[in-house]
Amino acid sequence: MGELILTTFDWVPKPPRGFVRDIRVRWALEEAGLPYRVEGVPFRDRNKGHISHQPFGQVPWLTDGDISIFESGAILLHLGEKSAALLPRDPRRRSEALEWLFAALNSVEMASLPWSIFKFSGDTGDTPGWKSLNEFLGGRLKRLEPVLAAREWLAGDFSIADILMADVLRLVDRLEGLKDYPACREYLTRATARPAFVKAHEGQMAFYAAADLAKDAAKAP
Amino acid sequence: MGELILTTFDWVPKPPRGFVRDIRVRWALEEAGLPYRVEGVPFRDRNKGHISHQPFGQVPWLTDGDISIFESGAILLHLGEKSAALLPRDPRRRSEALEWLFAALNSVEMASLPWSIFKFSGDTGDTPGWKSLNEFLGGRLKRLEPVLAAREWLAGDFSIADILMADVLRLVDRLEGLKDYPACREYLTRATARPAFVKAHEGQMAFYAAADLAKDAAKAP
Repeated sequence: MGELILTTFDWVPKPPRGFVRDIRVRWALEEAGLPYRVEGVPFRDRNKGHISHQPFGQVPWLTDGDISIFESGAILLHLGEKSAALLPRDPRRRSEALEWLFAALNSVEMASLPWSIFKFSGDTGDTPGWKSLNEFLGGRLKRLEPVLAAREWLAGDFSIADILMADVLRLVDRLEGLKDYPACREYLTRATARPAFVKAHEGQMAFYAAADLAKDAAKAP
Repeated sequence: MGELILTTFDWVPKPPRGFVRDIRVRWALEEAGLPYRVEGVPFRDRNKGHISHQPFGQVPWLTDGDISIFESGAILLHLGEKSAALLPRDPRRRSEALEWLFAALNSVEMASLPWSIFKFSGDTGDTPGWKSLNEFLGGRLKRLEPVLAAREWLAGDFSIADILMADVLRLVDRLEGLKDYPACREYLTRATARPAFVKAHEGQMAFYAAADLAKDAAKAP
């Protein structure tokens, strides 16, 4: 097995810290107990080397020996094949975990990400576009609520589907979008109380704190 | 192997015809030459039976023996495991196809779907929200353009990644969003010229034409 190297931005401003998507990969690696190393690429200058690993100039990507993978969903699927702690081996449970992994990204985040872009832009007035986006997300959360009220995790035991769903809900919660969805909030509390999430979150925060120190040191006379 | 049953809405209005997401699954099944049957669920009344298969009240879902799967990405991954015509067997190529499958959904459709919601709502004036969404999609297409200019398909041979990417781009093209991206348009032309797409498209159109006839017959005295 090749060494696992997770690449993320070498520095980001304060607001996104704790929410950079490498947290999804850190979380999975911590759940599985797989050793890994974190490397940084320039946040400001997205060069050819970066684009060759991540064509959209985003992060993270993971290298595993001679394989390099981008897209958090694809990375988590790759790690799921390495560890039953991340993806059940029973075909039916595995299929459930995979459909919920896609649902976290494509049914929930596809609604919550544009919603969050509008929240950040402050453009949440009485316009047809905002109304449509708000209803799009509300419609998805309304359907998710009874699912999460009835089960602890999405597909039997905790899996990569929960890592993605919880991380997607974290941003909605930060922007106060879960107020009317107590089961979603409780699920999020359960997920983020897991030691692997706590460690992953601390890891990302420490990584950027170290980047600040390095920046300051470089500025010193 | 169980019988493959694809479930979609039993009827939809004219505008979305040809774009209902069962086309992604039809296309994959036609590429792989896998036999399947199509069933309809009520478009207007999304009942408990529907929700038990697709918790968000959407379509399609696929049943394969005792396994029922929702989310077009998860369904295509499931079919990919059944046919090398859909997903390469070489680990490195497989990994490429999977990252592009997620990229089609999460890097491109995540930008194009909210953009299309705004296009449909007509709310495309000079607002910060619309501007952000338009830049979000433009940023992704700008990165996709050189990728598609340099290769025929996303991951070596044609794969499920191309089915999703092409179907995502179809809607953008319909709303005139590909004008500045000739390589994206040429890729889309290549993809939709495939006999399996043509057959899948005809299948969906014929399914809804038959639904209209059945409706008319029910109204007849």
